[in-house]
Amino acid sequence: MELTILGCYSATPRVNTSPTAQVLNIKNHLFLIDCGEGTQVQLRRCKVKFSRIRHIFISHLHGDHYFGLIGLISTFALIGRDAELHIYGPKGIKEITLLQLKLGKSWIKYPLFFHELESKESQVIYEDDKVSVETIPLKHRVYTNGFLFKEKIGDRRLNVIEAKKAKIDVSYYQKIKQGFDVENEEGDIILNKDITFDPEKPKSYAFCSDTAYYPECVPQIKNATALYHESTFLEEHKSMCAPTKHSTAKQAALIAKEANVGRLILGHYSTRYTSIDKFSEEAEPVFENVELAEDGKAFVI
Amino acid sequence: MELTILGCYSATPRVNTSPTAQVLNIKNHLFLIDCGEGTQVQLRRCKVKFSRIRHIFISHLHGDHYFGLIGLISTFALIGRDAELHIYGPKGIKEITLLQLKLGKSWIKYPLFFHELESKESQVIYEDDKVSVETIPLKHRVYTNGFLFKEKIGDRRLNVIEAKKAKIDVSYYQKIKQGFDVENEEGDIILNKDITFDPEKPKSYAFCSDTAYYPECVPQIKNATALYHESTFLEEHKSMCAPTKHSTAKQAALIAKEANVGRLILGHYSTRYTSIDKFSEEAEPVFENVELAEDGKAFVI
Repeated sequence: MELTILGCYSATPRVNTSPTAQVLNIKNHLFLIDCGEGTQVQLRRCKVKFSRIRHIFISHLHGDHYFGLIGLISTFALIGRDAELHIYGPKGIKEITLLQLKLGKSWIKYPLFFHELESKESQVIYEDDKVSVETIPLKHRVYTNGFLFKEKIGDRRLNVIEAKKAKIDVSYYQKIKQGFDVENEEGDIILNKDITFDPEKPKSYAFCSDTAYYPECVPQIKNATALYHESTFLEEHKSMCAPTKHSTAKQAALIAKEANVGRLILGHYSTRYTSIDKFSEEAEPVFENVELAEDGKAFVI
Repeated sequence: MELTILGCYSATPRVNTSPTAQVLNIKNHLFLIDCGEGTQVQLRRCKVKFSRIRHIFISHLHGDHYFGLIGLISTFALIGRDAELHIYGPKGIKEITLLQLKLGKSWIKYPLFFHELESKESQVIYEDDKVSVETIPLKHRVYTNGFLFKEKIGDRRLNVIEAKKAKIDVSYYQKIKQGFDVENEEGDIILNKDITFDPEKPKSYAFCSDTAYYPECVPQIKNATALYHESTFLEEHKSMCAPTKHSTAKQAALIAKEANVGRLILGHYSTRYTSIDKFSEEAEPVFENVELAEDGKAFVI
């Protein structure tokens, strides 16, 4: 699993930073998470192939999380896309997109699907044989979801040395990975557990932005391999969290600790700060494994 | 008059170019013309003070000319703007903007006015004592206007030497500039024409993008001091002009020649071209005074 940060700053514009957008490479999917203004250019900068994006997840309808969506959808049309595109986001996202396409007489020829969200309970919104995606209800000024991306448990891993020793024909290897006991060349039944290792532990990634400090999300993200949690403010501006429904770096660390996640990635920094070093300084006393998102940075999870 | 090009490329995104947006500094106004995605960042890059922008003119509702508008309007709110903002653009622009603000619960506290356009005839859409702005109906795939920005004729210029010779009290100088004859210290009437020069010739700037080759606009832009005319294509792709309703550099030059403008600025280049040098090469045989727009470049007019 690899996470590429396209943008990790909050709303006000700056020359060298971008608003929220990230690409999660998980089991051969490229999931785009949020799509602030300029995301299409950031995708180009990070050399992400447009046609590989089939699913876009929008957390909420504040501009710094979705004003780049209509541009991306339009560009996909301009460059002759034919692959399906699925948009998951709050109710209203379909109306706003179609209105803009209509006014520009920009007819989309590729299949475009909207999956509008309005439930305040967590839902599974995408699932196939390898991954699932669920909403994480968050607490913000407008209806907002985080997203929990989960790998499904994979095949058992073949112990090639033991399988050879047990004289099993290679044509059985696929069956063995699927968990079956098999017969060897001498007609003996070989137990699956003797020639395989347990599958790799499935990984998970929780994206929580934007949100006030909201411990109610902890049970759902418990033991996630990685958590991206917004940290708009430092402690010195903690009083701004209540009116804006954002979090501090320390609050993000408290969530990470409570949820016992593997690592915490901070982002959505207010552009009032000229350096982001203090964000990790304030989070680390609470939770050890803290990393700072930066535009263009990739995290192998 | 000074024109700053924020972006002058057509729709598909690239890392180092921006879609259409420009700022015209005319008689102390900063008029923003078009507002493609990323314009707010380009404004920062070119160090244009946000609060000085009071009027935004949108040519048409293709994304590369207005997808940055909602972000700019939202940012103005975030940074506590209180100055009025006027948006001039095709019908629909109000609905799309208000819908996005409503969905984001982003209430705008500064006075925001929409002046929606739907006439196919030229109209004066802004006027004060120093400048006027008229629409230039153009020919594109959707309803599109260019804009003609005209200075009004200014005061007569005082000939200080002659005024002193004629023994006129300085308290009369303002009146003289306004065109009045005045009495000198000896009680003689001094004719205005003897102590003034004609006013500076008022300048004008015509913005014509996007459009097919459309000579019908020539009478309106006749003798303009400067013309920005789109040149999406080179001659080798001339066949694409008809379906897309764009122009070649040569066609832009033909319009400039017919209209006898002072200078021609080319822009709205298709991103298929890696260099823009050929645009001037193809235009110059038709019209001599050709300049190439480039992102970040300023033209003193």
